[in-house]
Amino acid sequence: MRAVDRTGIEVIDRDECLRLVRGRQVGRLGIVAGGEPLILPVNYVVLDETIVFRSAPGSKLDMGPRSPACFEVDEFDEAMQAGWSVLVAGRLEEIDEGEAGAAGVTPWAPGPRDHWMRLVPRRVTGRRVRPA
Amino acid sequence: MRAVDRTGIEVIDRDECLRLVRGRQVGRLGIVAGGEPLILPVNYVVLDETIVFRSAPGSKLDMGPRSPACFEVDEFDEAMQAGWSVLVAGRLEEIDEGEAGAAGVTPWAPGPRDHWMRLVPRRVTGRRVRPA
Repeated sequence: MRAVDRTGIEVIDRDECLRLVRGRQVGRLGIVAGGEPLILPVNYVVLDETIVFRSAPGSKLDMGPRSPACFEVDEFDEAMQAGWSVLVAGRLEEIDEGEAGAAGVTPWAPGPRDHWMRLVPRRVTGRRVRPA
Repeated sequence: MRAVDRTGIEVIDRDECLRLVRGRQVGRLGIVAGGEPLILPVNYVVLDETIVFRSAPGSKLDMGPRSPACFEVDEFDEAMQAGWSVLVAGRLEEIDEGEAGAAGVTPWAPGPRDHWMRLVPRRVTGRRVRPA
């Protein structure tokens, strides 16, 4: 029997969440900048259960170390009105190129991407809506 | 000539951003809850340039009126390493069923979805990465 949350939506367990996140290349970083939420798509890899990505100097890096952040990956089928989403919540850290070396993320976007960041997960949750 | 931002990424103008948002059914709401960012997928419609969706009682509604929020819609082709994203930033408002009537959003997820919300945009921005 599948686990559901209080609103009746199917819950995805942590292992399956991490498997789904490992299977994609683009997710969305959620941060708070000046008290307001911001969502930024990034391409990423998963390394030791952390989300590793490269970033240009800018808002993502102006938050100071260990800023709270979240990362969302999903897949939806609009025709079927179904899909899944996984949310990884934790803290952002800047990492050096040595630490990041094993990750090998190549940014899709042009321009300098000098900083390596990782999101260290504190909580990993997921939900799935199956076709009606 | 296409406009680019300071990192060389192509900028999508406001009209095209709104056209792209109108063309999809699922986006991601970004909010701040307890000082931490949260990303929640919702299905939505666009009504008079506001993003209208239904919501179950819970975190999205515990923030008080006129909370800052953002809404992200995107489309990526992982094989081509290309895609676009649009971010609508503004304030959340609860609206009554009369106001929302014209919108006609049917939630994909099961469970009660008693509240109608709308995001009133203050800023609409978009970026596109074309295939290399």
